[in-house]
Amino acid sequence: MLSDGASIRWCGLLSALIAIMSLAFPPSQSVAQSDPLPSWNEGPAKQSIVSFVAKVTKIGEPDFVPQERRIAVFDNDGTLWAEQPIYFQLAFAMDMIKSMAPSHPQWANEQPFKAVLDGDRKELAASGEKGLLDIVAATHAGMSTDAFNALVDGWLKTAKHPRFKRLYTELVYQPMLELLEYLRANGFKTFIVSGGGVEFMRCFAERAYGIPPEQVVGSSGVVKFELGADGKAQLIKEAKVAFIDDGPGKPVGINRFIGRRPIFAFGNSDGDQQMLEWTASGDDLQFMGLVHHTDAEREYAYDRDSRIGKLDKALDEATSKGWTVVDMKADWKTIFPPQKEVPR
Amino acid sequence: MLSDGASIRWCGLLSALIAIMSLAFPPSQSVAQSDPLPSWNEGPAKQSIVSFVAKVTKIGEPDFVPQERRIAVFDNDGTLWAEQPIYFQLAFAMDMIKSMAPSHPQWANEQPFKAVLDGDRKELAASGEKGLLDIVAATHAGMSTDAFNALVDGWLKTAKHPRFKRLYTELVYQPMLELLEYLRANGFKTFIVSGGGVEFMRCFAERAYGIPPEQVVGSSGVVKFELGADGKAQLIKEAKVAFIDDGPGKPVGINRFIGRRPIFAFGNSDGDQQMLEWTASGDDLQFMGLVHHTDAEREYAYDRDSRIGKLDKALDEATSKGWTVVDMKADWKTIFPPQKEVPR
Repeated sequence: MLSDGASIRWCGLLSALIAIMSLAFPPSQSVAQSDPLPSWNEGPAKQSIVSFVAKVTKIGEPDFVPQERRIAVFDNDGTLWAEQPIYFQLAFAMDMIKSMAPSHPQWANEQPFKAVLDGDRKELAASGEKGLLDIVAATHAGMSTDAFNALVDGWLKTAKHPRFKRLYTELVYQPMLELLEYLRANGFKTFIVSGGGVEFMRCFAERAYGIPPEQVVGSSGVVKFELGADGKAQLIKEAKVAFIDDGPGKPVGINRFIGRRPIFAFGNSDGDQQMLEWTASGDDLQFMGLVHHTDAEREYAYDRDSRIGKLDKALDEATSKGWTVVDMKADWKTIFPPQKEVPR
Repeated sequence: MLSDGASIRWCGLLSALIAIMSLAFPPSQSVAQSDPLPSWNEGPAKQSIVSFVAKVTKIGEPDFVPQERRIAVFDNDGTLWAEQPIYFQLAFAMDMIKSMAPSHPQWANEQPFKAVLDGDRKELAASGEKGLLDIVAATHAGMSTDAFNALVDGWLKTAKHPRFKRLYTELVYQPMLELLEYLRANGFKTFIVSGGGVEFMRCFAERAYGIPPEQVVGSSGVVKFELGADGKAQLIKEAKVAFIDDGPGKPVGINRFIGRRPIFAFGNSDGDQQMLEWTASGDDLQFMGLVHHTDAEREYAYDRDSRIGKLDKALDEATSKGWTVVDMKADWKTIFPPQKEVPR
């Protein structure tokens, strides 16, 4: 507590000093040119981003793109935040199964629920796509959208990642936060286009990335409008898939939700390949990027053989077409934002 | 495309002029207080709008709503532009049938196409919903999204309304253009939420209403991603409905596309009732409005018995709940924007 108070006082003093200095020394060119991507090491990946943004934003240049067409799309899992050892939304669903188990005693003998409760990964994997859908149906349906959002909010505030022991929303990539901010400062509108559930992502996208709900495109389930006897309207989530925003579904989602072709797209897996191809087929100058997870020490290393976030065909296409491939280990100075000091 | 470039140039010129003028005449109190809704007659409808906006935008007031939650949604047909004698998108489809007929000789003996080609309204109406879907399938599918957009663009530039002899995009409501602008000037984000086809509307929404493609929610068909042998990606429109954004579908569409509950909603028919109910069930102060078409002389008069834009149950609910009902004849000084003089 004391150290917190002290740091607040220090920060206050520092701010005051900076304010006084800025009065004495108004922003100079060197300030304006300070590095907008400080967590990126110098190299071809950073260079390709900065050079692209310079080209499309300079009025009068042949590659200039008017602001309303500066649409940037980002995959979420593995591109803006981590996705190992399992997609974070699945970690949420499994935690929900555990907390719902007391009122569902039959789950003790019913797959895939038994596997979740026993922590039996092998059995869970064996339940396949059907098992996954059963878990989603049990945890993402039969309640109002408001009730679901409250559940996700509560989970995000408390659940911790098994390896990093940090909140899931703290496992966003610092270099990508800087990139999002850099693009917005250059007149881009930033969107998430992810296979994840759109309602799940909207619970944290604004806080974590500065991306408002209406700029999040994702998979969705069927919801049903209901008007209560009290005149209050609700949307009830049903156990039925409405739209899968993955693979070829990503350009479809971009067309349906955004209605403009992006000029900047970033992904990290084969599920992003068609989104990059769709972006690459536009008339304006385009940027296509992939995050390649090469850093087992600070994060994870995986690509062609991974069950989650498999990066194989898209990596080949990126290589052959000269798309930007971020080598996480070499290109990123830091992975996650600095951990806040927690008072003891 | 040409007119797009032209309008961008005009906008640039206009902005420059405004900038110069604002240097010469800094905003005075009288300018700030000038009527933002000059085409609205004084009365309860205008009063309810102005009073609502004042309440939610004044910091420190109990009904203040932060800017990011100021979501305003508008139905399109009959709310932002006219919808009689038939929805304008249907007029487009029927014109397409006529222009496609030479390469479809079988249509001369095949309903509903024969009815369209003969101008036989009775027979067309008899073909019902099935007939309508056949017309949409023939004119809205089997081509790329880019090809479809080009068709719509071309039609909007030339086709004229049978009664008013003006381009369809000139049959937007001047008072609603002012309302959209007024809301945006007060920090609202304006969206279209319409039963119309989302791709059709996006061809004119930005130009006609200042609403960008990514803020248009509408019905959509299935599209399929295709990668050509040349590496160019396309989305091909199929003759299958993906989502109907009407009636209870409107809150569903708002939830899926926008992800935030509106605080301001305007419609004109029973198809908008659930959107208004959804808005009315929010936690912030809300505004619900209906355009009542009461002006047969300047536009059209229709409500409870109309086949198009039927306004019956929603009118009863608006009356009983004190929602704003715009009496077009009494509340609107002008209906359409002034006709531009066309050089002969």
